[in-house]
Amino acid sequence: MADINEIAKVFVDFYYGNFDADRNNLRNVYKDISMLTFEGQQIQGVNGIIEKLTNLGFKRIQHKIQTIDAQPSHPSAGSILVSVTGQLLTDDEQNPQRFSQTFQLVPDGPGNYFIFNDIFRLCYM
Amino acid sequence: MADINEIAKVFVDFYYGNFDADRNNLRNVYKDISMLTFEGQQIQGVNGIIEKLTNLGFKRIQHKIQTIDAQPSHPSAGSILVSVTGQLLTDDEQNPQRFSQTFQLVPDGPGNYFIFNDIFRLCYM
Repeated sequence: MADINEIAKVFVDFYYGNFDADRNNLRNVYKDISMLTFEGQQIQGVNGIIEKLTNLGFKRIQHKIQTIDAQPSHPSAGSILVSVTGQLLTDDEQNPQRFSQTFQLVPDGPGNYFIFNDIFRLCYM
Repeated sequence: MADINEIAKVFVDFYYGNFDADRNNLRNVYKDISMLTFEGQQIQGVNGIIEKLTNLGFKRIQHKIQTIDAQPSHPSAGSILVSVTGQLLTDDEQNPQRFSQTFQLVPDGPGNYFIFNDIFRLCYM
């Protein structure tokens, strides 16, 4: 089995790379049982999640990842908790905002995972 | 079953209340299978975790919680993912630091939970 830190790194590169390029590409990593809590708003299911992510009020976004931490969340099932902190810049904004985001990845066939839990928050002052 | 947001709120009040009063009181919410990743340092087991939490280089700490988000992390087992953001002040420091912390709480008898996963990060600029 691949090291979970390596899995987390591959996932984070995939997720934010696609988020910044075309958020519609993230459709394949969510399922109908997936949950997103975005700045306190709770959404369940891939359609609602993608609708939310593609209607966030900006055209362009750029994430800069600063930390990635991973732990097994359900060792016998192979699920992984991934916690990320970083900065984001939207459109022509010059001042980055800090954010934290936590995912639980659940195995979905050999070598694949889907996002079961997703919690996003800006780090407020 | 109690609402998971209510469980998360009770847990957060308990955890940070005891963290700020006497970190030794947190011994009962960790087990030998518990994992803590503190600023990237990985520690497993209640003894190592409490030793880490009681030797963080400050005498006094005060947490101010700003957001609490909760999702079921393993619905059939009753486990809960809790993600917290807030500020902390240590000793005589006047400028708060922002932090994010994510827990997975796993049921441990009726109405009780223990911390299986714990990931702590300061929100860097």
